[in-house]
Amino acid sequence: MTRTSLHTPGPVNVPPQVVEAMGRPMPHHRTETFQKIVEGANAKLQRVFQTNEPVMTLATSGTGAMEASVCNLLSPGDKAVVVSSGKFGERWGQLTNAYGIETEIIEVPWGEAVDPELVAKTLDRVRPKAVYLTYSETSTGVLHPIEELARIAQERGVLSVVDAITGLIAHPLPMDDWGVDVVVCGSQKAIMLPPGLSFIALSKRAQKACAEAKSPRYYLDLRKALKKWEAADFPYTPAVTLIMGLDRSLDLILDDGLDATLTRFVRMSDRCRAGLGELGLEAYTSSPARSLTVARVPEGVNAKFVLDFVERNHHIRLAGGQDSLKGKVLRFGHMGYLKEDDVEAALAAVKDALEASRKQVTS
Amino acid sequence: MTRTSLHTPGPVNVPPQVVEAMGRPMPHHRTETFQKIVEGANAKLQRVFQTNEPVMTLATSGTGAMEASVCNLLSPGDKAVVVSSGKFGERWGQLTNAYGIETEIIEVPWGEAVDPELVAKTLDRVRPKAVYLTYSETSTGVLHPIEELARIAQERGVLSVVDAITGLIAHPLPMDDWGVDVVVCGSQKAIMLPPGLSFIALSKRAQKACAEAKSPRYYLDLRKALKKWEAADFPYTPAVTLIMGLDRSLDLILDDGLDATLTRFVRMSDRCRAGLGELGLEAYTSSPARSLTVARVPEGVNAKFVLDFVERNHHIRLAGGQDSLKGKVLRFGHMGYLKEDDVEAALAAVKDALEASRKQVTS
Repeated sequence: MTRTSLHTPGPVNVPPQVVEAMGRPMPHHRTETFQKIVEGANAKLQRVFQTNEPVMTLATSGTGAMEASVCNLLSPGDKAVVVSSGKFGERWGQLTNAYGIETEIIEVPWGEAVDPELVAKTLDRVRPKAVYLTYSETSTGVLHPIEELARIAQERGVLSVVDAITGLIAHPLPMDDWGVDVVVCGSQKAIMLPPGLSFIALSKRAQKACAEAKSPRYYLDLRKALKKWEAADFPYTPAVTLIMGLDRSLDLILDDGLDATLTRFVRMSDRCRAGLGELGLEAYTSSPARSLTVARVPEGVNAKFVLDFVERNHHIRLAGGQDSLKGKVLRFGHMGYLKEDDVEAALAAVKDALEASRKQVTS
Repeated sequence: MTRTSLHTPGPVNVPPQVVEAMGRPMPHHRTETFQKIVEGANAKLQRVFQTNEPVMTLATSGTGAMEASVCNLLSPGDKAVVVSSGKFGERWGQLTNAYGIETEIIEVPWGEAVDPELVAKTLDRVRPKAVYLTYSETSTGVLHPIEELARIAQERGVLSVVDAITGLIAHPLPMDDWGVDVVVCGSQKAIMLPPGLSFIALSKRAQKACAEAKSPRYYLDLRKALKKWEAADFPYTPAVTLIMGLDRSLDLILDDGLDATLTRFVRMSDRCRAGLGELGLEAYTSSPARSLTVARVPEGVNAKFVLDFVERNHHIRLAGGQDSLKGKVLRFGHMGYLKEDDVEAALAAVKDALEASRKQVTS
């Protein structure tokens, strides 16, 4: 029997109610039945994104929506500023480079939040069309001060684009109130779906930029998607079963309530950080996200041993570090079908693994 | 109870075995468990595409793979020839235009197959880098002579790219034997999955073109996908549950056997065409595809009435015409979890609808 629980920062455990919804007989996508599902899902997405503007659903993983926010806003030769503090911040830079955008990258040391003043100064100097930001950097567990960064961008007439792939739902993100221009998310995170969908919300200013941008695009062209969105439709065949699951999953989130969900993420991440501290694992950052907790692997402990031990003996899958953090950190995801007690289970499993590790070393 | 059966040219009825596979507990995509599923699915895809070359799976609908075969093969200013005989042939032209490709379009009257000699002459005159073809044009039900067209392209050193979205499995397509350079497919057709995945197979020549092409691309960049494919991996988070279903669906197809499956499509489409003839519905084309059958709506009959009547009273969903064929044709899909008896059910339902339509007119 497969019983492994995913405590990774995505993909996540999918609620059984959502699995059930995705397994229902599939309606054709050009039917009233499906259109009603889409209308419902679209309205619920707006509530979750806290915006009156369109939130479009794409049949891609999160990277597709990130790319859409580059090729739909900018033209070759335009200027952009990227704040990079991890693997996913780096991705913004790779994306703007792929489209011939003149890019200034603010390199933030991994583990640290960006200094808003540095962003303000850079925007003043470079005068870019857009600034690409990360809310919760999934590779390091660092949370960036998006409210302040969005205000700095707005004051300077710069479009703010936020990778909220592990940011949304787990942290406050009132898009319209904060004046964020583009919010990007993926399905396999706090939205509790399998991977395969991404989401992109555009402010009026971003929609205008979209109408003017000259980068080549077709499948990711949001001009077509925006028009179709008005009619609860899609330019190309949508991922029907995932959208059936989306509608159900958004119901579960909104039934709990956005505030109650935020509180749950605070409790889970607080308990995880405290519990790891009790086990001697130092937090990787002083600006921690709520969607995941990242801790340094103690001296003398092999990260792979811990991950394998926990999975084999406790059927809990955690994540290790990526790229330069490989072997150096453990990442605990709090998104998906998990509750506070599950954090205790993960902590107990890690405690067990650390004891086994010490025995190995001393024997 | 929802019991509508999809007789549309996609999306299609999904076999219950595939629904079950997609509903299983989802493994993390960076685990041995999932890697084994991917290895299996990749090998089975090669058998179905009849190629020794990589068949990559993308988290997009079919259009994403079509776009990938433009932006990965060509650079701005390159020349391409497009054979267009319907909505999806037109899409090839829209795609090459979006990427600044100098495009010559061979406009084939809707309902007709392209004349191979015209293609040969055009390739000789234009000397393009690639020719974009459609195997089975989903909007008209026309089958094009891909074996001959691929030979013509190969003899001239032109890359042949085939939209086989409703072509694969329902018709012979031995990619390597016929010397086709790129085959594109989607999940929600004869592969019997929900929408959300697309597939793209590249010959060695196409892989070389991919390494050299300069069009901007990131999510659809096949250079990265090719490298990852070797390790049964993906550049970005794959659509895990759809791939779990894919593995199961390919098992079902290969257990039946490709030849037996072809025979089933021949029988279903032959019977459908004959049965429609008995009802007085003329076939739309003399070069019919096997994956769908397209018939003209008789004089004095309202297509929408027939479609609605059949769906409401017989719980069978057929498709109407698209764009300029709207109201003029009915389309009967034969792909997905359907068998020969289901064709009889659809014919009986249409007969009933036509009788009701006549009563309406005379009353």
